[in-house]
Amino acid sequence: MKFFYKNTCFLEEEDIKNTASLLNGYIRKLNDIVKKGGYEYDEASLNLPFDENIKSDVLEMAKKKSNGNLKYIVVVGIGGSNLGTMAVYQALRGVLHTAVSDGLPKILFLDTLSQKNFFDLTNILKDVKDSSEILINVISKSGSTVETIANFESLFSQLGGKKIKDRVVATTDQDSLLYEFAQKIGVDTLKIPKKVGGRYSVFSAVGLFPLALAKIDIEKLTKGAKNIAGVCLEDDISKNPALASSVLMFLHSKHGINISNSFFFDPNLNAVGLWYRQLMGESLGKKKNKEGKIVNSGITPIVSLGSTDLHSVAQLFFGGPKDKFTTFVNVEKKENQIFVPNDLFFEGLVKGIKGKGFEEILSSIYEGTKLAYKNNKIPFVEVLLSCLDEFSLGEFLQFKMIEIMYLAELLEVNAFDQPSVEEYKKEARAILDK
Amino acid sequence: MKFFYKNTCFLEEEDIKNTASLLNGYIRKLNDIVKKGGYEYDEASLNLPFDENIKSDVLEMAKKKSNGNLKYIVVVGIGGSNLGTMAVYQALRGVLHTAVSDGLPKILFLDTLSQKNFFDLTNILKDVKDSSEILINVISKSGSTVETIANFESLFSQLGGKKIKDRVVATTDQDSLLYEFAQKIGVDTLKIPKKVGGRYSVFSAVGLFPLALAKIDIEKLTKGAKNIAGVCLEDDISKNPALASSVLMFLHSKHGINISNSFFFDPNLNAVGLWYRQLMGESLGKKKNKEGKIVNSGITPIVSLGSTDLHSVAQLFFGGPKDKFTTFVNVEKKENQIFVPNDLFFEGLVKGIKGKGFEEILSSIYEGTKLAYKNNKIPFVEVLLSCLDEFSLGEFLQFKMIEIMYLAELLEVNAFDQPSVEEYKKEARAILDK
Repeated sequence: MKFFYKNTCFLEEEDIKNTASLLNGYIRKLNDIVKKGGYEYDEASLNLPFDENIKSDVLEMAKKKSNGNLKYIVVVGIGGSNLGTMAVYQALRGVLHTAVSDGLPKILFLDTLSQKNFFDLTNILKDVKDSSEILINVISKSGSTVETIANFESLFSQLGGKKIKDRVVATTDQDSLLYEFAQKIGVDTLKIPKKVGGRYSVFSAVGLFPLALAKIDIEKLTKGAKNIAGVCLEDDISKNPALASSVLMFLHSKHGINISNSFFFDPNLNAVGLWYRQLMGESLGKKKNKEGKIVNSGITPIVSLGSTDLHSVAQLFFGGPKDKFTTFVNVEKKENQIFVPNDLFFEGLVKGIKGKGFEEILSSIYEGTKLAYKNNKIPFVEVLLSCLDEFSLGEFLQFKMIEIMYLAELLEVNAFDQPSVEEYKKEARAILDK
Repeated sequence: MKFFYKNTCFLEEEDIKNTASLLNGYIRKLNDIVKKGGYEYDEASLNLPFDENIKSDVLEMAKKKSNGNLKYIVVVGIGGSNLGTMAVYQALRGVLHTAVSDGLPKILFLDTLSQKNFFDLTNILKDVKDSSEILINVISKSGSTVETIANFESLFSQLGGKKIKDRVVATTDQDSLLYEFAQKIGVDTLKIPKKVGGRYSVFSAVGLFPLALAKIDIEKLTKGAKNIAGVCLEDDISKNPALASSVLMFLHSKHGINISNSFFFDPNLNAVGLWYRQLMGESLGKKKNKEGKIVNSGITPIVSLGSTDLHSVAQLFFGGPKDKFTTFVNVEKKENQIFVPNDLFFEGLVKGIKGKGFEEILSSIYEGTKLAYKNNKIPFVEVLLSCLDEFSLGEFLQFKMIEIMYLAELLEVNAFDQPSVEEYKKEARAILDK
């Protein structure tokens, strides 16, 4: 993974350096946490990729549940319980995978309560001949997420109830009621370390188990995460992309540029954007800072897709308010595999595309977009993944989690709680209990 | 469709009334345009739903191309050429439709250049036995959109080239080169009126033709649009939701609340959100106002989905900066069709869900969310669609197009151009031509 920000951000080098130096102490703390290992700190998620026990538990469970004929993994979970899995799965298998015939197991997601989607999901599952072809992974840190348990109970009952209980794995906190109930009834379980919150849990069993079932290489994924953790814990900003990115976002935010636009030049990275949207939104959006002062802090994450959104919201990005800081994300090595024919049906209609590879054309649009950003002095940074595989995705996700920890530290807010969401839940519960 | 804003916006009634009165003249103009009919004004799109010729052209072409065994419609188009179609199609058929077996024709979308998605799309098309089962609708207002023509040429060639030219329909401006070429080669065409830009074109052949092919009731869709146009052209703000919505967004924007959050409580309305995102972003995001003064105007549209995003970015909405104005969109009549079993597997784990309908549970979360918004004095309005059908969608889309025309008028910008996107295109072309 490469990270570029020189000459595209229009900030003073000194401001950048001074701000980066504010994080020296915190960087030392994170290094200590990684050296020490274990899960006692809020930043415990840093240690997940290094934890061989998690991987062996996950791979053992995946082996036990697979038997070579697994067709569908239904992930029942919402928010932090499915966004990481969705990010990696869609990036590697594509948004159309559910309808593609390639013999690989497919992950289906049940998150919110949608009758239409529940019907459609059970329609898709109709081609299952034996319960061994399906695995339900119910995921909830607290164990009591209303939508998750309601979806699970309904699906489980429809697919046969107790007689398929060996086709269920519950991923949850060891101290949750769900864990206790599952153990009692004899449902297999995987644990989420207590200090690892949903939005930081992609490298725990939450993400690794369904991904492993879908034959995604979780060794390679965590290897990428481990690899980038090294550079993202360095003091030197010129070597540390997480530090650089957090400092730039922080400084822009202080200058009123408070929308963070993650602009992916691949439509299959949309779910990576949705994962980051939660990570940033929930970690930084805080009423109070760590000292209890009301600050209403936060940066609003938005997700754009190239080249699609150039035909949708680019006019706003170029002409509208100067309130956005953009992170372009592209893939470096994209081989041309599809070529526009040399013999065109509409010969002479569009110049310059004849015989060209798709990636070559898209790349010219990407470079043209960056030039237009530069010409218009719209601040951006660029992340280049070396290719679209497990390793690069592991790098990107870990890079972003560390970046957000740094950003929260600069904004002086707690990156690991989400106190404000309790209120709507309380109101909803009161209505539901009536 | 119902629209509510009283007691949820915290603005002075007088400010609202005074601002609304600024639009009196423009409302008269729009009424005149509708009375007069035709397509000579920028606001010509208002007359599309009333145009019986468009509908008969579209239905005739759909009849000619269907023959009862149509399985796949491939819409090749980007931005305004596919977002309206996607909005209506996904709202009615669901995000999983591509993989569902229900005997209905499926729309597949090719927008940006993605090798992965191109491969997957052709994989899905492998079950096509005869070319009559497939129809390619290539859509481009200008006729020269690079991604669209590159995708089309590649797909067309792969599916057999010239010998399947009767399975192609080109939707474009009558004066475009694509129109001329298609006519010359003998490819069927449908016209887009010159003054109707992409983001206002859903009720032209751009949206109506693929939707009609997919057996979506375009009569009912345009009937909804016609129905709401009546109230959205009234002077009285208490009767006119487009006027009320635009005035509220404008006033909030003037108070620094410059992010517009469309919060849909149905995951299948996501594409409606993406359609609106273009409509708002491209119509209001302007460097210069109508007098040529540099204003960098614009409101940033974001799309949220309930209840999914309550588990993702709600913490930001409740705790973060007070920079968002929210439009909740929900469906009024949702029958409970799926019920959580009475006999629970995890009995006693989550209270209050046993035997409850999915819609009842989701509705409690929705009402709880609105209460939390009210308690936190976060401004919002509410749109209730009477049910999720063509009529309601027609109402919603037309309501939003008129709302944006009003908003542009209040912001004193041109709602119908997109001058800033030319620059990246120019840069991209220079690279491509090298």
